[in-house]
Amino acid sequence: MVTAPNRSDYSLLNDTLSEYRRAALDTLLGYVPQKEPRRHLYDLIPDYPQRGGKGFRPALCIAACKAFGGEMRHALRSAAAIELFHNAFLVHDDLEDGSEYRRGRPTMHALHGLPVAVNVGDAMNALGIQPLMDNRDDLGSKITWEVLIEIERMVRQSAEGQAMEIGWVRDNICDVTYDDYLRMTLKKTCWYTCITPLRVGTIIGTRGRFDANELDRFGFYMGAAFQTQDDILNLVGAPDLYGKEIGGDIWEGKRTVMLIHLYGAVDEDGRERLTAFLSTPRTGRTSADVAWVMSEMERWGSIEFARSQSRQLAGAAMRECNRVFGPLADGPDKRFLFDIVTYMVEREL
Amino acid sequence: MVTAPNRSDYSLLNDTLSEYRRAALDTLLGYVPQKEPRRHLYDLIPDYPQRGGKGFRPALCIAACKAFGGEMRHALRSAAAIELFHNAFLVHDDLEDGSEYRRGRPTMHALHGLPVAVNVGDAMNALGIQPLMDNRDDLGSKITWEVLIEIERMVRQSAEGQAMEIGWVRDNICDVTYDDYLRMTLKKTCWYTCITPLRVGTIIGTRGRFDANELDRFGFYMGAAFQTQDDILNLVGAPDLYGKEIGGDIWEGKRTVMLIHLYGAVDEDGRERLTAFLSTPRTGRTSADVAWVMSEMERWGSIEFARSQSRQLAGAAMRECNRVFGPLADGPDKRFLFDIVTYMVEREL
Repeated sequence: MVTAPNRSDYSLLNDTLSEYRRAALDTLLGYVPQKEPRRHLYDLIPDYPQRGGKGFRPALCIAACKAFGGEMRHALRSAAAIELFHNAFLVHDDLEDGSEYRRGRPTMHALHGLPVAVNVGDAMNALGIQPLMDNRDDLGSKITWEVLIEIERMVRQSAEGQAMEIGWVRDNICDVTYDDYLRMTLKKTCWYTCITPLRVGTIIGTRGRFDANELDRFGFYMGAAFQTQDDILNLVGAPDLYGKEIGGDIWEGKRTVMLIHLYGAVDEDGRERLTAFLSTPRTGRTSADVAWVMSEMERWGSIEFARSQSRQLAGAAMRECNRVFGPLADGPDKRFLFDIVTYMVEREL
Repeated sequence: MVTAPNRSDYSLLNDTLSEYRRAALDTLLGYVPQKEPRRHLYDLIPDYPQRGGKGFRPALCIAACKAFGGEMRHALRSAAAIELFHNAFLVHDDLEDGSEYRRGRPTMHALHGLPVAVNVGDAMNALGIQPLMDNRDDLGSKITWEVLIEIERMVRQSAEGQAMEIGWVRDNICDVTYDDYLRMTLKKTCWYTCITPLRVGTIIGTRGRFDANELDRFGFYMGAAFQTQDDILNLVGAPDLYGKEIGGDIWEGKRTVMLIHLYGAVDEDGRERLTAFLSTPRTGRTSADVAWVMSEMERWGSIEFARSQSRQLAGAAMRECNRVFGPLADGPDKRFLFDIVTYMVEREL
């Protein structure tokens, strides 16, 4: 991790992230069948999980479990399942968006073609059920069911968020509001990335004795801050750290915080040109168009707007974190949950 | 149903098929959320299930349950879930194969684009979990788990079969053997279409007191007969009955029973030309090429070979059906299970 001089020291947080990520990844890999068909299926399943994502999701799940006094081993299968479902989602998401890079490498469909990518994603979703069924061995029937219900809701919410975003691009809806954006992000990002990992970790750590709904606002604010930072990094990030094509969201016509802000901020000529740009199919867009959109975002303060939103969301997340986890006994996992909020908006990858 | 003069009278079977199909479809539709996002998600989910498939899968599940003395209502949610997963599979399968028609209408991706089709399939898979979780209300925890495990295995088997078939086309494997074909069909077709519906219906009907493994051979033979007949209908079916483009499998380079037979039967010149045809990308294949492949299949007896295989498989299925269901009390559901075997290889749609 590259940290700017005045920022907090995230070395402890990074250690925790990689420890929890590693543990969940090992569990996940244990669920990948070592058998045929390998080349077009099972050999490809570890690819995305092993590309070195940050491991936010399993880490949030494990940390929430431990902050409430639970043991890591009880959360591992659920964390691995969340990671599997998340990576299945990424494989299909990259295909749907026509993205070319993911975590510094060509996307699954770019490497192996559309049919393989669709099928690998489907197989990952199917495999994700297994660790959740195995939860019965040490969590018992009741908690196992509760976790399964959480995951099922997560997958459904993500499909709904995805449908909203796909619909905006497909119908070329230009006047998406910031409220629409937050609703879409809640569904597409927040459930997967924050709300469900926190809820599941808490359900396991407390054996269902804490009302998981109390975590939803924390997860929403943190997830929205995370997504806003992701929008920003896609525009101004360092390509070698970020791992996707810089400006890729503009090429895809994605309704990011900056695009939505820009559409509301530009003058009439600018809005006309922006509408024309968005109406052009991806293949018809030029580098000059993309550069123009970027410069307009600078000029009209869209990036500054996004940065300010992300800071406000992180502030709200911090308050919620304090409300829920503040009263618990101090310890490294409670510390981690507080630190990760600022980390999410200060990260550069 | 159009039946040729000398064939058995399938009117009773058709009544049962449509009764069970309707009941499962109603249950399925009850699980489709009536809420946003509608246009790009929830409004599209009933499309494939409502296109008037024959309803083999829910009917096998319900009939097996009732033949063993169970009640239809206890199998309905599982039958609906199987139907949902199956239709999700079809949406993705059509996309992977680049198919243009399904049951007489343009495919999901042809109508709504790739991103929507991928996401609708994912959402259908997620929704399929719900009726299986609701099984707890009347089947209890133990049987609910058993059914869930069956479905998870079914989805995994299908992804494996799909990977095999995709791999053959992608790597242009021409010397696929009939044994390879049967192994692929077992995974891709038989689990979804026959084995799992029979197993699940039996588990529910007997409350787990009958060894479900006893049904696997019946399901395999019946499913392989079904798939062989599907291969044949794709080539020689009546377009208005069959609902897909006739000869579509040849356009797609699909390794059907006939193609595999032809590859082994033609002379050296023919094999060279066939290899060249299969190496050409779909878009580069011409109607003349496809017509040539069809005429060679006629000439070398590939269609007759497929018909003979399908009859033999149906015979084996019948023996297995008799072994498992023969000892049970006579009744309309036992009758249905016997009749459906011959129906599957005599059907024209």
